[in-house]
Amino acid sequence: MSINLDVWFTPAEYKDEQEQTAVVIDVLRATTSIVMAISNGCQAVIPVAQVEEALAQREVCPDVILGGERGSLLIPGFDLGNSPREYSREVVAGRKVVITTTNGTLALRRAIKAKTVIAASFVNAGAVCRFLRQTSGGGGLLCAGTKGRFSLEDALCAGLIASRLSDVAAMSDTALAAAAMYQGAQAHLREIVESSSHARHLAAVGFAADIAFCLTHDVVDVVPILADGVLKAMPG
Amino acid sequence: MSINLDVWFTPAEYKDEQEQTAVVIDVLRATTSIVMAISNGCQAVIPVAQVEEALAQREVCPDVILGGERGSLLIPGFDLGNSPREYSREVVAGRKVVITTTNGTLALRRAIKAKTVIAASFVNAGAVCRFLRQTSGGGGLLCAGTKGRFSLEDALCAGLIASRLSDVAAMSDTALAAAAMYQGAQAHLREIVESSSHARHLAAVGFAADIAFCLTHDVVDVVPILADGVLKAMPG
Repeated sequence: MSINLDVWFTPAEYKDEQEQTAVVIDVLRATTSIVMAISNGCQAVIPVAQVEEALAQREVCPDVILGGERGSLLIPGFDLGNSPREYSREVVAGRKVVITTTNGTLALRRAIKAKTVIAASFVNAGAVCRFLRQTSGGGGLLCAGTKGRFSLEDALCAGLIASRLSDVAAMSDTALAAAAMYQGAQAHLREIVESSSHARHLAAVGFAADIAFCLTHDVVDVVPILADGVLKAMPG
Repeated sequence: MSINLDVWFTPAEYKDEQEQTAVVIDVLRATTSIVMAISNGCQAVIPVAQVEEALAQREVCPDVILGGERGSLLIPGFDLGNSPREYSREVVAGRKVVITTTNGTLALRRAIKAKTVIAASFVNAGAVCRFLRQTSGGGGLLCAGTKGRFSLEDALCAGLIASRLSDVAAMSDTALAAAAMYQGAQAHLREIVESSSHARHLAAVGFAADIAFCLTHDVVDVVPILADGVLKAMPG
């Protein structure tokens, strides 16, 4: 056993563990979009809580791209919504993105006191596991949830990461639970996630295609790391 | 779909749903002991929060048996601990038991406003499922947890019940998660539960044998139902 692994199913449960790496997970869709943006050459992603903060950042620095959602939809005056497919290389390479979402950006802020804060989703799960294998002090997988409530897809992503680390991790009850959940769901992952409340809402407002994309495992190799309020690609 | 099914992983998350049947689950060991006591002819189980309440009840009614635990151990002055194997027919038939435990009796009290409150564990899961299939208004599976925290064995028992009702239930995200968790864990259920924090504690204080017993599925057919503060066998 080389690392302790814990999972928090909702941000409210999260206890600051300053010696840990906090792994923030918001599969549908914030951390998937953040990972894809960074992977596509975005210089920095700045998560902010409020729409007004994002608009103010553009006042200061007119070159930034504004992205995010409220009620899953594009915010008036913003450039991009919260669909990971919008954060293409053509759009984000070399640019800075200010992003505000309902759950993911709040969870990132909640984790801010951890030794290291990284963003994870299915698309970069393999890279996150490689990072955690080399970390000291353990990892805490923080599910963003949906409006404070348990979110199935985030718990399943935590479960994928926990499953893959079971050979080296001393797992908490919630980590054991998440790993079992992933193992029980993996053969029908998309079908199960599509029956979740958040996925049904996304499909209803026209984002069904995002769900399949957000569940794709190990698409990219980047690990976005949060430092001084800004997410960038992990150096190395 | 005939019933709505929800799962609360901790009592703190539980929202009163007065139209629902609340199914209180404390596998290790309170609801397993309660189910076994009722199955063995115990006339009534009275759950109380405090040791002093239990002692006071015996002052009023010297004939009652006092059972329960603090720190998993027998409470000084009590007749029985919290091991389901203690609640045998020889000991409890025709008697009333006042019980106080760290998690299970608190969860029963938390659920008290629900239309119907029943006690469940692996040992009576089949009977609970049969009851829920006939209920109207849906079911909420309330995991007692351990000192307010997520408890693996309770979530897995909720998952067993949710799995078995998947043909008739409209499931919440947590119900889907619990069902997937059970499906992922069932082939190694005992091994996984034995690595949980509560099970390791129980084994350390001499109750390893209880764990195997508490995970046995469908041992008895009774459904304890709470009415006017007292658990009795469901009539019928």
